[in-house]
Formats: sequence, C-alpha cells, structure tokens
Amino acid sequence: MINPLKIPSMVPRLFGFRAKEPGLPPGELVHVGEKKVEEVSISVIDYDAEQLQEREVKEVAECLPFRESSTVAWINVSGIHDIGIMEDFGEQFGIHSLVLEDILHTGQRPKMEDYGEYIFFLLQMFMFDDEARGIKVEQVSFILGPRFVISFQEREEDVLELIRERLRKSKGRIRKMGADYLFYSLMDAIVDYYFVVLERIGERIEVLEEELVAAPGPDTLAAIHALRREMIFFRKSTWPLREAISRLQRTGSPLIDESVNIYIQDVYDHVIQTLDTVETYREMVSGMLETYLSSVSNRMNEVMKVLTIIATIFIPLTFIAGIYGMNFEYMPELGWHWGYYTVWGVMAAAALAMVCFFRRKKWL
Amino acid sequence: MINPLKIPSMVPRLFGFRAKEPGLPPGELVHVGEKKVEEVSISVIDYDAEQLQEREVKEVAECLPFRESSTVAWINVSGIHDIGIMEDFGEQFGIHSLVLEDILHTGQRPKMEDYGEYIFFLLQMFMFDDEARGIKVEQVSFILGPRFVISFQEREEDVLELIRERLRKSKGRIRKMGADYLFYSLMDAIVDYYFVVLERIGERIEVLEEELVAAPGPDTLAAIHALRREMIFFRKSTWPLREAISRLQRTGSPLIDESVNIYIQDVYDHVIQTLDTVETYREMVSGMLETYLSSVSNRMNEVMKVLTIIATIFIPLTFIAGIYGMNFEYMPELGWHWGYYTVWGVMAAAALAMVCFFRRKKWL
Amino acid sequence: MINPLKIPSMVPRLFGFRAKEPGLPPGELVHVGEKKVEEVSISVIDYDAEQLQEREVKEVAECLPFRESSTVAWINVSGIHDIGIMEDFGEQFGIHSLVLEDILHTGQRPKMEDYGEYIFFLLQMFMFDDEARGIKVEQVSFILGPRFVISFQEREEDVLELIRERLRKSKGRIRKMGADYLFYSLMDAIVDYYFVVLERIGERIEVLEEELVAAPGPDTLAAIHALRREMIFFRKSTWPLREAISRLQRTGSPLIDESVNIYIQDVYDHVIQTLDTVETYREMVSGMLETYLSSVSNRMNEVMKVLTIIATIFIPLTFIAGIYGMNFEYMPELGWHWGYYTVWGVMAAAALAMVCFFRRKKWL
Amino acid sequence: MINPLKIPSMVPRLFGFRAKEPGLPPGELVHVGEKKVEEVSISVIDYDAEQLQEREVKEVAECLPFRESSTVAWINVSGIHDIGIMEDFGEQFGIHSLVLEDILHTGQRPKMEDYGEYIFFLLQMFMFDDEARGIKVEQVSFILGPRFVISFQEREEDVLELIRERLRKSKGRIRKMGADYLFYSLMDAIVDYYFVVLERIGERIEVLEEELVAAPGPDTLAAIHALRREMIFFRKSTWPLREAISRLQRTGSPLIDESVNIYIQDVYDHVIQTLDTVETYREMVSGMLETYLSSVSNRMNEVMKVLTIIATIFIPLTFIAGIYGMNFEYMPELGWHWGYYTVWGVMAAAALAMVCFFRRKKWL
Amino acid sequence: MINPLKIPSMVPRLFGFRAKEPGLPPGELVHVGEKKVEEVSISVIDYDAEQLQEREVKEVAECLPFRESSTVAWINVSGIHDIGIMEDFGEQFGIHSLVLEDILHTGQRPKMEDYGEYIFFLLQMFMFDDEARGIKVEQVSFILGPRFVISFQEREEDVLELIRERLRKSKGRIRKMGADYLFYSLMDAIVDYYFVVLERIGERIEVLEEELVAAPGPDTLAAIHALRREMIFFRKSTWPLREAISRLQRTGSPLIDESVNIYIQDVYDHVIQTLDTVETYREMVSGMLETYLSSVSNRMNEVMKVLTIIATIFIPLTFIAGIYGMNFEYMPELGWHWGYYTVWGVMAAAALAMVCFFRRKKWL
Repeated sequence: MINPLKIPSMVPRLFGFRAKEPGLPPGELVHVGEKKVEEVSISVIDYDAEQLQEREVKEVAECLPFRESSTVAWINVSGIHDIGIMEDFGEQFGIHSLVLEDILHTGQRPKMEDYGEYIFFLLQMFMFDDEARGIKVEQVSFILGPRFVISFQEREEDVLELIRERLRKSKGRIRKMGADYLFYSLMDAIVDYYFVVLERIGERIEVLEEELVAAPGPDTLAAIHALRREMIFFRKSTWPLREAISRLQRTGSPLIDESVNIYIQDVYDHVIQTLDTVETYREMVSGMLETYLSSVSNRMNEVMKVLTIIATIFIPLTFIAGIYGMNFEYMPELGWHWGYYTVWGVMAAAALAMVCFFRRKKWL
Repeated sequence: MINPLKIPSMVPRLFGFRAKEPGLPPGELVHVGEKKVEEVSISVIDYDAEQLQEREVKEVAECLPFRESSTVAWINVSGIHDIGIMEDFGEQFGIHSLVLEDILHTGQRPKMEDYGEYIFFLLQMFMFDDEARGIKVEQVSFILGPRFVISFQEREEDVLELIRERLRKSKGRIRKMGADYLFYSLMDAIVDYYFVVLERIGERIEVLEEELVAAPGPDTLAAIHALRREMIFFRKSTWPLREAISRLQRTGSPLIDESVNIYIQDVYDHVIQTLDTVETYREMVSGMLETYLSSVSNRMNEVMKVLTIIATIFIPLTFIAGIYGMNFEYMPELGWHWGYYTVWGVMAAAALAMVCFFRRKKWL
Repeated sequence: MINPLKIPSMVPRLFGFRAKEPGLPPGELVHVGEKKVEEVSISVIDYDAEQLQEREVKEVAECLPFRESSTVAWINVSGIHDIGIMEDFGEQFGIHSLVLEDILHTGQRPKMEDYGEYIFFLLQMFMFDDEARGIKVEQVSFILGPRFVISFQEREEDVLELIRERLRKSKGRIRKMGADYLFYSLMDAIVDYYFVVLERIGERIEVLEEELVAAPGPDTLAAIHALRREMIFFRKSTWPLREAISRLQRTGSPLIDESVNIYIQDVYDHVIQTLDTVETYREMVSGMLETYLSSVSNRMNEVMKVLTIIATIFIPLTFIAGIYGMNFEYMPELGWHWGYYTVWGVMAAAALAMVCFFRRKKWL
Repeated sequence: MINPLKIPSMVPRLFGFRAKEPGLPPGELVHVGEKKVEEVSISVIDYDAEQLQEREVKEVAECLPFRESSTVAWINVSGIHDIGIMEDFGEQFGIHSLVLEDILHTGQRPKMEDYGEYIFFLLQMFMFDDEARGIKVEQVSFILGPRFVISFQEREEDVLELIRERLRKSKGRIRKMGADYLFYSLMDAIVDYYFVVLERIGERIEVLEEELVAAPGPDTLAAIHALRREMIFFRKSTWPLREAISRLQRTGSPLIDESVNIYIQDVYDHVIQTLDTVETYREMVSGMLETYLSSVSNRMNEVMKVLTIIATIFIPLTFIAGIYGMNFEYMPELGWHWGYYTVWGVMAAAALAMVCFFRRKKWL
Repeated sequence: MINPLKIPSMVPRLFGFRAKEPGLPPGELVHVGEKKVEEVSISVIDYDAEQLQEREVKEVAECLPFRESSTVAWINVSGIHDIGIMEDFGEQFGIHSLVLEDILHTGQRPKMEDYGEYIFFLLQMFMFDDEARGIKVEQVSFILGPRFVISFQEREEDVLELIRERLRKSKGRIRKMGADYLFYSLMDAIVDYYFVVLERIGERIEVLEEELVAAPGPDTLAAIHALRREMIFFRKSTWPLREAISRLQRTGSPLIDESVNIYIQDVYDHVIQTLDTVETYREMVSGMLETYLSSVSNRMNEVMKVLTIIATIFIPLTFIAGIYGMNFEYMPELGWHWGYYTVWGVMAAAALAMVCFFRRKKWL
C-alpha cells in the first residue's frame, strides 16, 4: 500500500496566484499561468436524442454552424494560451472581453456571470495525475448558450470523459435534454471529484491519527502542516463555488430550464457537504495538532523527570563519599573497623529513602 | 457502574464520509455505505381514528393501495441496499431519482426538499446498540405524501418503536390526525433521542472533570480528545437540521397543516437547544483541555523545581568536601584537631542558609 | 468580609440539562428536574386602580373567576411537579399541551411563543439563596392573557416580592395599567437581578486580578476556571432572552399595548447590556488566564535560571578541587608551599569571572 | 518626555458597571455612579444667526421660555446626581421617565431612542484630565427637541468648549442652522476626541514595540495587558455607537433635516474608522503578546542551553579527576612520571571534543 | 537576487493614523498627514474620440472650461497640502466641504459617497518606490462628474501613467467612452497593483517557508511578525473597498452608465480575490508561526535531552569514583590487586547499561 502521506502535494507554488501586468486595458487578453499543453485542440460533440456526431476542428469558424443548429453542441477547448483562438471565440460567439480575460487568467476564484445571451461559469477541476500519482488542479470555464456549451480547460485530460461516454452510448435523459442539462452534467462530474479529493484527505487524516498514537515524530508535524495547507487550498478553491451556484439558481435566466434547476440544487447540496466536511476536517486536524504538541511535550517531560531524579539521587550520595575523601588528620570514622560498611549502609538508606519519597509523591 | 469513558465511540470510520464513483449519471442508483441488514423488510401500518391494520409486504406494489386509501399509511423500509426495491418505490410513488440517490447515499447532511406532491426529509438517527453497549448512527429518510409517510432506515431496530406502540394502543390525537402529524411524531422521537446522546456526553464531561481534579494522566488527554471528536461528529450531524426544519416550517406546502406547524416549531426548539448545549459543552471541553495542560505543566514544574533545589543544595557541599579532599602538602586546616567538625558545621550552615533563602524566596 | 471566591457555585450539575424519556407523546406531561418544594401553592393577587385582594387558593378552578373579571389578576404557582394541577391549568385556561410540557421541563432556554389568546414567555430567574450564601437558578414561565398573568416557578421564594409590595402599597402606574404592564414589571424585576449576578462576577474578577498580581497559585487557576464556567452558564441562560424579547416586541399581539412596548424595549436594552458585559468579562478573564499562565511560567523560569546558575558556578570549582584530590605521585603543585592558597585564589577568580559573565549577559 | 506607559489608566473600577437596586419601579429615579461635582449647574446658550445670549439658570423653570422661542437653545446640565432637578426636567420638557433613568445611570452603552417629540441620544465622552494627566470617561446624554438641545454631563469640564467658542464668535453655518446641526456639532466634537484617545493608544503600542525589541521584561507583559484592557474598555464604549448613529440616520424624524443627515453620515464614518483602528490595534497587540512570549521563552532557552552545556562539559572532567582520586593500592598510572600531565591532556582533549561536537551540532 | 525579507516595510508609523485637532468645525480644511511634495501641480487631459489635449494649469479657475465642455476631462492634482487650492476646487466645482476634509485627511478607509451631482471615491494606492526599493502607500481621491474626473493624490508619481499612455496613443474604447469609463480605468489600474503587492507578500511567504525548513532562527520569527503586520495593514486598507465598490454598483446614479457597471463588477471581483488571498495568506502565516514555535521548542528539547543524558550517565560514575576516594582505614577493595581494574569494569558496565536503557526507551 502506498503511504498516503507520501503522495505529492496538489498545492501549486504561490497557491496558483500570479498577478498580471498591472494597468493593462481591460479586455487586453494575456494568458496568466503555466502553459500546460503544446497545442490547443478543439473538439465538438453535437447531438440530439436521435443522433450524435463528434469531430475535431482546427478553426473557431468551423464551430459556428453548431451554434445555430437545433441540436445541442458541446465545444471543448483544451489549452488556453493561444490568444488568437480566444479572440476568435470572443468575436464569433460574442463573448465579452472581460470574460475572455477571466478564462485566460488561471487560478481564479469560482464565479458565475449572467450576460443575458450566455452564462459564464468558472470553477476549479481536481483530478488524478497518473504520472505524478498526485492530484492536479486545473481551471475550467463554461459558456452556456441557448443550444451550446463551450468549455475551456488547461489540459487535454479531464474528469469529463465519463460524460462523453454517456453521451455516446446512452439514449437516456442526457441526450433528450438541452444544453443546460449538459452544462449541469459537466459541473456535477467536476464537483463529484471533490469528494474523491476529500476521501483522500480523510484517509491521510486517519493514517496520521494512527501515527499520532503509535510514534509521533517531527515527520508527523510536517505531515499535519502539509495537510492543513492542502485544506486551506482546497477550501479556497471551493468556498466561492457555493455562492456562484446559488446565484446560478436565482438568476432566472431563460437559458436554464426550471426542470434543470432541481439538478443544480443537487450540485449545490454536494458543494455544501464538501465545505461541511472540510470544516470538520479542519477541526479534527487542529485537534490533532494540539494532541501532537501536548503528547510530545508530555513525553519530553517524562524523560526529563526520570533523568533529573537519577541525578538527584546520586548527587547527595556523591556528597557523602566526598566527605570521607577529605584528608583531615582527625576524622574518627575513618579509623572505625566497620566505618566503610556503615557509610555504604547510610548511602543505601539515603537512596532508598529518596526513592520512596519520590514514589509516594508519584514522581517516579 | 460502567465507566462512561469506556463506552465505544459512536464516530464511524472516516466520519461516515464516503464518495460515490464520480461521474455517474444523476439518478443512477448506487448504495453508498455499509450494508447493515441482510434482507430488506417493508412493513405497513395503516390506520384511522377507528381502526388499524399492520402487515409485512414483500413487493412494493402491495403498498400502492395504501397510497390511495383515505386512511393514513406508514410504510417503513428497513435496509436500503436493494437497488431494485428502491427503483420500484421511485416508479410507483413517483419519487424523483435525485431523492432516491440521496436515500441510498448514507452519511448525508440533514436536508428537506419540497417536491410539491411529496416532501423529502432526511436526518440522522442515533440509538443505543445493546450488543456493543454504544451508540450507533443511522440515516433515516422520510417521504411525506398526502395520506402516507414512507420511512427508509438502514437497520431493523429503531427509536420509533414507541410510536408504533402509541399508534396501536392509543385512540388519542395521533390516530385522529393526518400523515403530517405522524411525520412530526417520527421526527420528534428521533430528535428526543439527541438529548439522550447529549446526556451521555454530559456525564462523560462530569467524569472527566472529576478525573481532572483527582488524577490527570495521559488517558485524560485521550478521553478529552475522543470527546471532542464525538462532539464534532454529533454537531456535524445535527447542525444542518436546524435549517432543514426551518425550511419545513416556511414551505407553505398543503401537505403540512397549520395545526401541525406548531408541533414542528417544538421540534425546532429542541434542535436549537441541542445545538446550544453542544456549543456549551464545546466551550467546557476546551476549558478542560486548557486546565489539563496547565495543571500537567504546573505539576511537572513543581517536580523539576524540587529536584533542582535538592541538587543545588548538595553541589556546593560536595565542593567543600572536594576542597579538603585535595592532597596539598601544606593545608593548615587538615591539621586542626576540630577541623573535621568545623567543616561539618560550615556545610550544615551553608545548607541551612540556602534552605532559608529558598524559603524566603517562596521557592520551596 | 467574605471571600467572593469561596461563595458556592451557581452552576448546577450537568448545567441543568436533563433529557426526558424519549418518544413520549407530545403533551404527555412529565416533570423533568429536581423537586424543589414539597407542596404546590397557588396565590392570586387581583387588583385594579381602586382595590386589591390577595388570597391563597387550593384548586385551579378557584382561579377561573379572576380570569373573566375586569380587574387584573396575577396567579402565581410555586412548585411545578404536580402534574394534576398543571393539567387543570391546561384545561381551564386553554393552554396548549406543548406549553405545559415546556413549563414542566426545567433548564430550558428562554423562549417566547404567541398563541393568539395568550403569550407564553419562559426565562431563568437568578436569586440569592440565604442559606447556602450562593446564587440559585430557577425557571419561571409566564402566561399573559387579556386580563391576567399566570407565573410558574420552581420554589416559593422569588425576586418578585418587591412587585407584590408595589402592588399592595402604590396606587401608581402599576395599579392603573393592565396585565401587560404587570407582565413587564415581573420580567423587569427578574432581569434587574441579572445585574446583581454580574456585579458579583465583576467583584470576583477584581479579587482575582489582585490575587494575580500578589500571589498567583494553583488556586487562582481553579478560580479562573470556575469563573469561566459560571460565565458560560450565565450566558447560556441569558443569550436567547435577547431574541425572545425581540420577538415579543415585534409580535404585534393585541395583548401588549403600544405604550407598554416602550418599557419592553427598556428590558431589551438591559439584556443587551448584560450580554455586552458578559462578553467583556469573558475577554478579561481569558486575558487573566494568559497573564496567569505566562507569569507562572516566568516565575518558574526565573527560579530554574538562578538554580542552574548556582550549579553552573560550583561544578567547575568542584572539578578543580577534584584535580588536586588525585593521588599521582608526581604532582608538583602539591608540594608548593602556597599551592593550597593559590588554588583557593584560582577558584575564587573563576567563580567571580563566571558571575561577571552572567551579569554582563543579564542572566543574573 | 513622559513615558506614555506611565499615564494612569482610563479604565474605571468594575469597568463602570454598577447595578442599581433590583426591583425598583421603572421611572423611579436613582443616580447610579460616582458623584463627580458638588453642585448641579445649568447653563443656557440661546442664539440665532443674528444674536446670542448666554446665562446660568438656577431653576429648570427658567429654561422653559427657551423651549418655545424661535431661536435655538442649548441647555447644558453639569452634574446629574440631583434627582429633584432631573424630575423637573422630566415634567417641564415632557421627558419619559425611562429616559431620565438612563441619564442618571452612568456607564451605559450608547443608545438612540426616538420619542417623536424629541430624540434621546446617549454616548460616552473621553477627555484629558489635566490633574491626573490621564483620560477620564464621562457619560453625556442629549435631548434633541425642535428648537433646543439639552445635554446632561457628569462634570463641569468637557470637550464641548470649542463649540461654545464657535457659537460665540462665528456667524457661520452653526449660527444659521437649527438645533439638529448643533446636536451634530456636539456629537462630532465628542467623537473627534476618540481619535485623540486612539492616537495615545497608538503611541503606547509604538513604545511597547520598541521596548519589545530592546529589553522585554515582566513590565512589558503588564503594559501589554493594561493596553489590552483599555482597548476592551474603549471598544465596549464605542462599539454600540455605530448602531445608535445608524438608527439616528434611518429614523426619518422631522427633527433632523435631510441636509444635516450628510453630516451625521460623516460622524458615522468617523466611528467606523475608530472601530476599524481598534480592531487593527487589537490584532497588533495580540501579535505583540505572542512575540513577547516567544522571545522570552527563546531567551530563557538560550540561557538554559549555555548553562547546561557548561555543566555537561565539566561533569565528565570531574569524573576523570575522581578516578585518580581513588585510593587503590595498585593503580599503575599514579606512579607514572608524566601521569599527572597526561590526565590534564586527556581532560583538555575531552573538553575540546565536546565543544567541537556542540559546535558542529550548532548547540553552542 | 535581493532577499525579499530585506525590502523596507510599507507600513507607515502609527499605521498612517493621525488625529486632526478635535472640535474643529466640519469643513474647516486642515491637511492631516505628511507633506510629500513641495508644490501642488495640476494637470489636465481633455479628450474625446477625435482629439486630446494635455496641459499643466496654475489656477483652479483654468480648469473650469473643461468642466463644461462636451469632451471628457481628467484633472489630476498632485499634492494636497495647499488648503487654498482645495478651497478653490470646493467653490468652483461645488464640492461639499466634508468631501474636501476627507481628501485632506490622509490614511482614511476607502469610501464612496454619492452627492448627486458628483460621486466621491477614496481609496489607497500602493506603488513601488524606486529609491527606497520598497512599497509606498498614498491616498487617492476621485470626484466623478458628468464629463470630468478629478483625482487628488499625495505625490507626483503614480501607477496611473499607463492610463495616460493609453489615452494618448489608443483610439480604442477608452477614448470613445465617457468619464465613468475613465474613472473605472483609473480605479482598475490602482486595484491591479494590489496583486503586485500580494505577489510580493507571497514570495516572502515562500522564502520564509524555505527558511523555516532550513534554518529557523530568531530572525525568522521577526520576519513572520513583520509579514503579519504588513498583512494587517494591507487588509485594513483594502477591506472597506469591497463595500465601497459594492455601493458604487448599487448607487443607480446617472453618472455611471449601465455598460460601465459590468466593468466595475470586474474590479469588485478583483478586490474580492485580493481579500480572499489575504485571508489565505493569514492562515498560512499563522500556520508558519505555529510550525516555527513547535520546531524551535522541539530542537531545544532535543538538545536538553542529550545534555541531560550525558550528565545522568556521568553522575553515578563519579559517585563510584568518589567511593574509592574515601580514606577509610579498612576498605578491603583498595588492597585487591585487580581492584582498580574491577572498578573500571563496573563503571563501564554501568555506563553501558544506562545507554542501553535509554536506547530501549527511545530517549537516545
């Protein structure tokens, strides 16, 4: 079994926070963040209850037909560093430049904005990185239009593959309903993954608690602090989602049907439960920290006490020995035949008395 | 008497938190949690003011007649792992798939949802486990319809037996009123049990406080932390109930009569009092922790002080003895007849002086 | 003068929290709490601006005439353990069974409920116990009807005697106004006593602060924690009163005249001031705790430092003495005539050097 | 320069909190607090844009003409212990008895009450005491009527002298506008003084921070705690002012003109800034406390470490010396010619080795 | 690379808080704060989509024509200590005296006030000081009129140069839109700089975290506290901005066009993100402090333990040596031929036993 404490941290350098050049005009598009793929790829899935087609496109212009068709189109863009492509999207789909700016600036807090013709939704996606055996974070933005959903993500891999599978295979509800339901499904898939992250954190808390009982060491402290750091990061990434989804529910936009709102409420409940659990974990971890600190200090105190008691017993004995090491000419005890043995007896008695005293005081 | 600190913890592994497989379509029913009974059993109590019949049914379809009848029916389902039965309920009683999903996913936060034709209410039930001599947690879900209440629980045993007895024997208010009053009675029985849990926690706090005065040890610390953990868990399970009941009151659904609302207010007050008490206990426990830590450190300091004082008295005396243990050829004191006794006197005086000094400084 | 820290605690066992048997039907009356008087006594004061009569009644039925009369009646019930009498009240005054249940269940949080025909108000009364020389808590419930107030208390003694006196003697406002003003006066008398409790707590804080400067000891710590416990209890008993009175003001019930509302606002202000003061005291007490802990640790550190310095000075000297206690055949210093005195000089110099060094380092 | 830490504390005994006799009828006037002046003095300033007259009056009745006149009158009462005078004001100006009670009961939280015909406003005034070289607190109450302002204060001296000067000299806005503007000006003058108190606290924080770096001692700790206590007191006195002024703005009373509301908003902003600064100071002070505690414990640890190292080096050396102080008949080293010097060498080497070891471990 | 911990602090003395003389009439203009430039300079940029002119003016009166023109004018005032100029602005642009007072009083909390004819907005600007290599704070106030923006700043240098450049060069949106868009652009430029400050703080947190792992020392503690102080200051300066901008959005003033509101929402989001990040940093820093304190105390404990163990081993050995240093006439061991070697053996065995014991106890 892999020690869950050894899995690399998902917390990025600087907490994913990076300032863009100040003073740039709004709408001047700049990609802020790490470039995570070489090439931007655009894939389209276009479907209705009857049929489904899937294709890769090279130009944004190729997506335009899907926008107008009566079918539902999911346009997925992997890689957001290509300013040109983003500007094309802006122009051809009529997306506000501030929205494009937000999409390009990674590490943002989740937000929802209703621009009338479309809804902009941004959140953080967590997923397993198979290579690094850790969890990666990625910013995902959605544009929900009347018959289409555009999703922008930083990398090719995502947690949305299951939704693609469902679209391809099932002829169920997802194929019958509109773009709003597709949008909900994507959001739901991402939020469901939060539970996986929480479960992983929960496992690490358990391992730490066992370690805390068995053999707490400086490593334990480091692990607790790493855990705390991850929870701060996770909470920061999910906390504003609560409000964003709540605003999504109350927006009253015709883009979201009443029947889909009930599903969005479900996602909202999941987010609340996520936050609840994070709060509980935080309390547990800070309890663990206290336990750790007090148990370490307890152990140390015990050690010091025993050592000090040993010293305390021997110091008076050494004093007695020192007495009879003096070279006075007239020391009657020195001439006694049993003097030596008497001193041994006195010393043994003194040691015993002290041990009893410490015992009675419950110090030993 | 059983030591209340030895009763097994009611806190489940991972705090009852378990993720379902992410990306599953909503409404795809999966049972998440431990399977607590072998077989699902469905029992029906159907009554009005005049008569009452009670029976076990095998098929969900057998429940349907009760749904339509003018009497009140309480359909109780023990065991929720059988997806087929749940789907039958969904179909035949028109329950939304998201509701079924919630029922199946144990360890949820309390919630209330008004679906128009029925109200969905979910909460956590605490009860004594006679075998383990501890408290168990179980998720209970209610579907309140016009003339029926369906309750889903994980095990056969419950705290609702008293309600069954009251239904069977009394011809009182519970038999005269509708499904909403039955629903209230069930909820009230569950919430009343919270007070029992609190009383148990209260007793443990008392025992711990006495232990804290008498003989605090590492066990005390562990017990405090266990108590804190239980309180975090209990609070997490009950805190959202406040809001759920509050929404129940404000829902304005025709399913709940005005006259029953006053009773629901009473349950609400109980939940508030529960939370109040938990908060008070939390403050007391964190006070206890501080007391413990400072009393341990006080005691340790006292020990170290006494030991250090003993060492401090004997080290100078040993030094004096060391002086006259030197082998210089010309040391006049060594030749004095009373030299040895004089040194004893000097050492006694020095020891006395130091003891007095420490006394006056209040160190001893 | 009595040491205010020795006054017995007002905090009851288990914080007055006791669960009733779970699962009982609502309205099934059970007395939960200690039985504080042997016999229930019911007294009635009936008055208007012109006349006043006072009598003891044995049967609830005897109170009924007062209910209907055009005068104002104050019916006071001392002792709440007699279920029969409570049921009589319920029947004859039309009091909801949930209200009766609340009256019987002591240790409740303050609450206000408007039942249309009457208003139910419950709060905690604090008063001096002349025997125990401490403060006792007692739950008081009020039923405010159109021309009557019924008060239920646990014991015979109360803080309302002054109101009785005022009724008997004065022909002032209290005799001219209605039941709502009487109700206000009773509430006001109880809340005024909160300030007495606060004053007592304030005095204890002062005594503790002086003790903290003069001679902090383990007793001080215990007293701080006892104080904190009392404040948690007091706050728990008064905090919900704020909301209860606020609801009383906003209830818009015809039972409370607009002209009386201004007085109720005054009680509200007093409660707020009480809570304010409790918060301030809490901050002060937690400041005291910190001061205590850091001053104890400071003092201990000082002791340890001095003792360690003494040991540190003598250990090297003992080493020097040890050197010349060695029995080597060829040790030139031993033969020197002034060797012994030289060693004394060396040791004195070493001791002095160390003392100077410690002084310069500000360690001594 | 005067050490700002030596200025006497402005925090009164018991935080200015004193209970009145409980159970007194509302409106029964009792002065609660210290009597701060011998005699009550009443002064009137009556003005309009053209003229101004100023006089001392002996009887409340003499003030009545100013009440009705078309000019603006400011009636200032210094000394509030004379119940008779207060009752006269109550009668002649129609002031509610609860208001009079509040005026007489010092140490109250700021409040605002709109009685229709007049507005009652109460706040705490801080001012320099020239004798004690410290800051004093005093309760000031205002009654704002249509063409008059009555102010009640505990002492003769106040921070309002500047307003009197402005009234006398200027023919500016204050003389042209009504009683509401006068009321605002008085309030503003009092709130402006809060900044002076804050500045003083700020200076003390600076001095303490420098002391913390230079030479932290037990005095520093005491000063930090005194500072914290003052801030708790100051915050308690100003915090409710925020709400009181906010209610003043929203009251919609015809007594306050719209054009004056903008000025009241300014006072509100000042109060907010005051509270902001207090919060910031609190954070800084608690940071200082932590720094203090950790630096004290750091310093102590350093001392103990050095001392323990000295002892640790000499104890093994003493052991070696003890070896050759043994009196065995056959100890070959004792007979060696260079034995003595060899032992010296061994001891020096051991000491050096230990020093190097401690150095390498960075302990020294 | 420059050590980011050595960059001078941006926190001003007394946190930029300075009281003005209390009791001054409102609108009596006094400059409170440091005088940061010698001479006040006023520059005007007047533009529309077609043309742009830029000039320096000496008299406020010269600005008046720009006020009325159909073009957009940006009047920038550097230096606010000249009361005369401020009064001129007040008169000629009809600015309320309270606004002028706020502009002159530096170190204020951000605020927004809608005076109908103009909007007043005040916030804190952070910028790099090239000389001091640190960050400076400066108060900037805006007056937004129908066709003009007046900005008041303390120094000549600012972060608005980029906006000037954009105005001069671009013929883009900023030239086509009105004064509200200009106002937004200025605000946006200032808020964007907050991210730069945050990034700098973030870098310092990183450096500190590495130092914490590598070599924590008293400097680390000082740096943590300095960082905390800066964050308190930064938060105090930005926190109220959230509310100010929110009020700006909701003001409904005709001065701000609906199309610009969407941009203001963007600034609002940036401020929220700033505050979010500050909160996260605060949590991280307090986590670092805990780590630091516990790692220091761990290290110290380790040292003390090793030293105490050394002493504990040698004290009993010295005792044994002391025994055989006694001068009793009859001590048989002294005459044994192998006595000396036996004692060495005993001592070695004792030392070994102790070392083993400590090892087994995991103390060594």
